[in-house]
Amino acid sequence: MSLDGFVAGPSQSLDNPLGIGGMRLHQWVFPLKAWRERHGLEGGDVNESTTVVEESLANIGATIMGRNMFGGYPGAWDEEKPWIGWWGANPPFHHPVFVLTHHAREPLQMEGGTTFTFVTDGIEAALAAARGAADGMEVSLAGGASVAQQYLAADLVDEMEIHLVPTLLGGGERLFEGVGDLRGLQLMRTVATPKVTHLKFTRRREQ
Amino acid sequence: MSLDGFVAGPSQSLDNPLGIGGMRLHQWVFPLKAWRERHGLEGGDVNESTTVVEESLANIGATIMGRNMFGGYPGAWDEEKPWIGWWGANPPFHHPVFVLTHHAREPLQMEGGTTFTFVTDGIEAALAAARGAADGMEVSLAGGASVAQQYLAADLVDEMEIHLVPTLLGGGERLFEGVGDLRGLQLMRTVATPKVTHLKFTRRREQ
Repeated sequence: MSLDGFVAGPSQSLDNPLGIGGMRLHQWVFPLKAWRERHGLEGGDVNESTTVVEESLANIGATIMGRNMFGGYPGAWDEEKPWIGWWGANPPFHHPVFVLTHHAREPLQMEGGTTFTFVTDGIEAALAAARGAADGMEVSLAGGASVAQQYLAADLVDEMEIHLVPTLLGGGERLFEGVGDLRGLQLMRTVATPKVTHLKFTRRREQ
Repeated sequence: MSLDGFVAGPSQSLDNPLGIGGMRLHQWVFPLKAWRERHGLEGGDVNESTTVVEESLANIGATIMGRNMFGGYPGAWDEEKPWIGWWGANPPFHHPVFVLTHHAREPLQMEGGTTFTFVTDGIEAALAAARGAADGMEVSLAGGASVAQQYLAADLVDEMEIHLVPTLLGGGERLFEGVGDLRGLQLMRTVATPKVTHLKFTRRREQ
């Protein structure tokens, strides 16, 4: 998230999926060994952000994301242009991924253990499916903003990590648009680096 | 600033000058000895935020603020209700304060060395007056959001400290509304505490 609260810049498109300037929010992660390994790349840096990235990837058995994050184009799926996600033949998830969409579609089996399953009956159904597929491990909510907002509003988020980047985007998608309440999520640790501040929130459930 | 980018909550009023929930942005500072001293109060805490507060108060010879921060009511000054600011007879500034307003008014001489001078000819005039009054010391830009935005847009901010509080306000005044560019201000240090993250930006001028 940018200092002004955006998780994607303005004018998102197929050519520029994160919108104008949106890539700046992710520059801190690309040089990291912990990120590069996940994407089949060698080498990379180890720094204060390393444990944060490792922690966020550890013990994840399934991922949920919104249609806009899965990407391609809005509306119904085009059989002439079979969009398979941004990540190529071997996506970096390596576990079942559930994509929230209004448009039904057969599951996609990718290389490396990633499957994309398209869920049309809402966030609770997607969570139930992801929990089943995760087989006792955690479910990761990857984004984007709209899906995060829906799960927050439904009190279904137990942990949240904000990677706050000291830049402004000036427009685009706001993570907390229309949220207004952290729903019991409280800051429990901060990791500060020159490029990014990692703010981890966990839910203190009522006794 | 809240995690969702607001420096005041919704529905600001004379009874609730920071808007709904806005006081939550300041709770970290009230227990601090460094803050209490400034307000003529004894005792208080010393913690990681202490040096940040001391730094922000050190070497300041004059302060600039907007009319909304000085407060009272919008529009022309009411001679029947001579508003003298939120701070009582002895405000915590103890140096000259310049209030940006569209409505001319005679200067106010307060106790403890604070004067309020009302500037009607714009931000550059206020800065020139404040620099003169500061007599070689620094000029502090106290706020609110609109004044901060104007000085940022005019490239007149050399340092900026964000006190980021891990809460959401969901509405109100956004610090970076319409800004979109940090104008060369770069994060140079972070102090992380459970109640607040202090992000200090300084300008790297072109060589």
